[in-house]
Amino acid sequence: MKPKKPKETAAEMTELVLPNDTNTLGNLMGGRLMHWMDIVSAISAQMHCNRIVVTAAVDFVDFKHPIHLGEIVKLSARVTRAFNTSMEVYVKVIGKNLRTGEEKFCNQAYFTFVAVDQDGLPISVPPIEPETEEEKAQYEDALARRNMRLMLAGKIKPDLKILSDLLT
Amino acid sequence: MKPKKPKETAAEMTELVLPNDTNTLGNLMGGRLMHWMDIVSAISAQMHCNRIVVTAAVDFVDFKHPIHLGEIVKLSARVTRAFNTSMEVYVKVIGKNLRTGEEKFCNQAYFTFVAVDQDGLPISVPPIEPETEEEKAQYEDALARRNMRLMLAGKIKPDLKILSDLLT
Amino acid sequence: MKPKKPKETAAEMTELVLPNDTNTLGNLMGGRLMHWMDIVSAISAQMHCNRIVVTAAVDFVDFKHPIHLGEIVKLSARVTRAFNTSMEVYVKVIGKNLRTGEEKFCNQAYFTFVAVDQDGLPISVPPIEPETEEEKAQYEDALARRNMRLMLAGKIKPDLKILSDLLT
Amino acid sequence: MKPKKPKETAAEMTELVLPNDTNTLGNLMGGRLMHWMDIVSAISAQMHCNRIVVTAAVDFVDFKHPIHLGEIVKLSARVTRAFNTSMEVYVKVIGKNLRTGEEKFCNQAYFTFVAVDQDGLPISVPPIEPETEEEKAQYEDALARRNMRLMLAGKIKPDLKILSDLLT
Amino acid sequence: MKPKKPKETAAEMTELVLPNDTNTLGNLMGGRLMHWMDIVSAISAQMHCNRIVVTAAVDFVDFKHPIHLGEIVKLSARVTRAFNTSMEVYVKVIGKNLRTGEEKFCNQAYFTFVAVDQDGLPISVPPIEPETEEEKAQYEDALARRNMRLMLAGKIKPDLKILSDLLT
Amino acid sequence: MKPKKPKETAAEMTELVLPNDTNTLGNLMGGRLMHWMDIVSAISAQMHCNRIVVTAAVDFVDFKHPIHLGEIVKLSARVTRAFNTSMEVYVKVIGKNLRTGEEKFCNQAYFTFVAVDQDGLPISVPPIEPETEEEKAQYEDALARRNMRLMLAGKIKPDLKILSDLLT
Repeated sequence: MKPKKPKETAAEMTELVLPNDTNTLGNLMGGRLMHWMDIVSAISAQMHCNRIVVTAAVDFVDFKHPIHLGEIVKLSARVTRAFNTSMEVYVKVIGKNLRTGEEKFCNQAYFTFVAVDQDGLPISVPPIEPETEEEKAQYEDALARRNMRLMLAGKIKPDLKILSDLLT
Repeated sequence: MKPKKPKETAAEMTELVLPNDTNTLGNLMGGRLMHWMDIVSAISAQMHCNRIVVTAAVDFVDFKHPIHLGEIVKLSARVTRAFNTSMEVYVKVIGKNLRTGEEKFCNQAYFTFVAVDQDGLPISVPPIEPETEEEKAQYEDALARRNMRLMLAGKIKPDLKILSDLLT
Repeated sequence: MKPKKPKETAAEMTELVLPNDTNTLGNLMGGRLMHWMDIVSAISAQMHCNRIVVTAAVDFVDFKHPIHLGEIVKLSARVTRAFNTSMEVYVKVIGKNLRTGEEKFCNQAYFTFVAVDQDGLPISVPPIEPETEEEKAQYEDALARRNMRLMLAGKIKPDLKILSDLLT
Repeated sequence: MKPKKPKETAAEMTELVLPNDTNTLGNLMGGRLMHWMDIVSAISAQMHCNRIVVTAAVDFVDFKHPIHLGEIVKLSARVTRAFNTSMEVYVKVIGKNLRTGEEKFCNQAYFTFVAVDQDGLPISVPPIEPETEEEKAQYEDALARRNMRLMLAGKIKPDLKILSDLLT
Repeated sequence: MKPKKPKETAAEMTELVLPNDTNTLGNLMGGRLMHWMDIVSAISAQMHCNRIVVTAAVDFVDFKHPIHLGEIVKLSARVTRAFNTSMEVYVKVIGKNLRTGEEKFCNQAYFTFVAVDQDGLPISVPPIEPETEEEKAQYEDALARRNMRLMLAGKIKPDLKILSDLLT
Repeated sequence: MKPKKPKETAAEMTELVLPNDTNTLGNLMGGRLMHWMDIVSAISAQMHCNRIVVTAAVDFVDFKHPIHLGEIVKLSARVTRAFNTSMEVYVKVIGKNLRTGEEKFCNQAYFTFVAVDQDGLPISVPPIEPETEEEKAQYEDALARRNMRLMLAGKIKPDLKILSDLLT
């Protein structure tokens, strides 16, 4: 399979925060935001493999700033690395206040998707060929994050070496 | 503030998987499930602190089994431990096939919420008093998970000791 | 077919009242609540018969207290009695204010469902075996309620004896 | 207050049955239909009293025919009688198959609404002046249905005379 | 194919403006209104041809008055003329304030639909036989509007004669 | 007020076609697409003026290709020209099949928005300074399109000169 570049997998999504997306303080609920993050990441993964994809895992998400009713949310996603049948997608969330024009970085996360065929069985995906420095760094670190996921999911034994790689 | 028992914070939610919740294979999308997990966890946290709560973080989520169109999803949440102004909530997801009656464990996660006042500022919450052995174990481990979150969010320095506690 | 106990058919649902669920006074609209009552009752009926079910009738519903924006609604349902191809489900609705922790009984109703096969044709369901005193009383009264429904639907002739049984 | 004629309170609603409105057989779920019945009835009651209204009760509903995905649902409502602060609304549901043009009567029901002021307190509504024979008959019978509701809600003592009036 | 009268294709829809339909000023968003206009027009076209229809074009829409949260929107549509496989539908939108009873004309538009078979291929539709003076005038002008659409879509060459017919 | 460049007003939106967005052939309904076009255009207009905006008009829309269930829709919008209190926004819609990677141009339209203050009254907006050849051409033609709108809305007298400008 022909490798793809991260930019070929880039997906952008813009959402307007409506009343039903907010809590009683008028702030976007975290679950709604994760729903959007999952959709834009899945689109990115599908642009990479041209297959149906299913969410396999979501890494730690840290919500840094509230987003308010009437503000807009800009989500951007791209594939950082592909493994055999899975892809890691990096997604970044920016909140934008349309009155002031001000943008704030709200959160980021890594989603993992598996490509499947019509029977739902895993199927191989093309490799990723990083271009920029940032893409290359994310590509390198993707392996440690993958090992971390396997540890947290109980599929491989805990290994401090992996953790140490991830944090330094 | 008077401590509360985990069972006083228990919240149950049942959802039916409808067409708009599924991908083109007819499987529940991960983002929709996270949306529901956030709502039931937030309700649990609010039952603990009787305040408005905002999602602060979501730990690693591993999606183990697909849930299909027409199946039901049973979510149950309870607070495991309260810190100064934040609460850790454990949420478990069971998929149930109504034709066979079969239930399967689908995933679990820890959500962190912060209690806020009407101006959105953090406010103290009561402590948790675990009762059962499982609750006591989750209460103990909550501290290591909290340190892990602070590390991942870049708020404290990486510390292998914490990771080692978490994994063993 | 092996009889089932009411507790094996118990379904719990928790919903958060969002802006789109309310009228301009900020109170939950009756129709949205009936929608949720139908879903939780249908899940209960499906847990009893492991078949697709269709709503056949809804008895009188009396809305006792308003439920407000941001409050939660706890619905619980269980099958009270099964007839040939139909099941009567009892559903109870509790509104809970998360700030005060206060709960109020909002309403209750009896829904009737018919089990159907893939062609939509009625199909037999197992009997119910009540255990507690309350379950036994509901099981006994289910027959009078069923006759009442047949009268109101014009399927049997009006009979004051039935009404008298139902009200005393 | 100046009386109104039932035709001045007439409200029509047409809905298209979409995938999320149906069960796994592709039939409209009863709860969604009741949601629509509540909205069209509330609009009718508001056209009568020009006030915010809240659903107070729903009488027995009997679902006669399934309505399928892609079919349309025509709902029509009008106020049959006003009491002090409440109004009884009659709502009729027709399913229409757009391929054959065939229409089928699906169900009908009586909804009761209470008019409220900005604080949610009951407020007087104008009387109804029926014109046609059918409207006059519904106006007459509304009293027996109201007594029946009060009995079923436990607000007045059971009285076989009332039931007998209602059924004959 | 037997011709139909415009009144046989009449479709009425009533919608209540809910929080998620509005912008932060509490006014109905234009896109939501166009969504409703498309649905009621499609129903009208389907009542004419008894086939699945797809939206082919929407003419100029001018939004004259804002509609507010809690107000109702009355949409009415009817087919003005049928061409070979397409139909022009006229849709009119009235906003109604339920407190004052006041109605205001909000906008109107012409939608064009194509009838299709199960494979999505265009299929012939019956002609329209206008009855009233207004229907006859709309029927006559439909041809000029159709030519205008073909010009705007780049399917025929610009022709000032057509424009002149349309505007005078 | 400081002029803005069209690229400063660019808004991108990506949507996944879900079951509730489609007709019974599995094709995206025109009204849903117009709803999305309105949202992305409104965001673009708000990025230009940093004010709340209301939809004033939508020019002719021609739907060229069906978009199917499970495909994605890419919408991009930018302001072409600002007048006193209004802005013209150009929006383009691309459908993308994720299995083949193929993209098709689906439609384009011009939306007009008016900037309003908190009381809903029109308020001045900054001018647009086009940069590229395409932007300059759209800026020039915007005046003829505006005159056409005023004619179609009955606000100025029909003038063949304007039409002639628009079509050649």
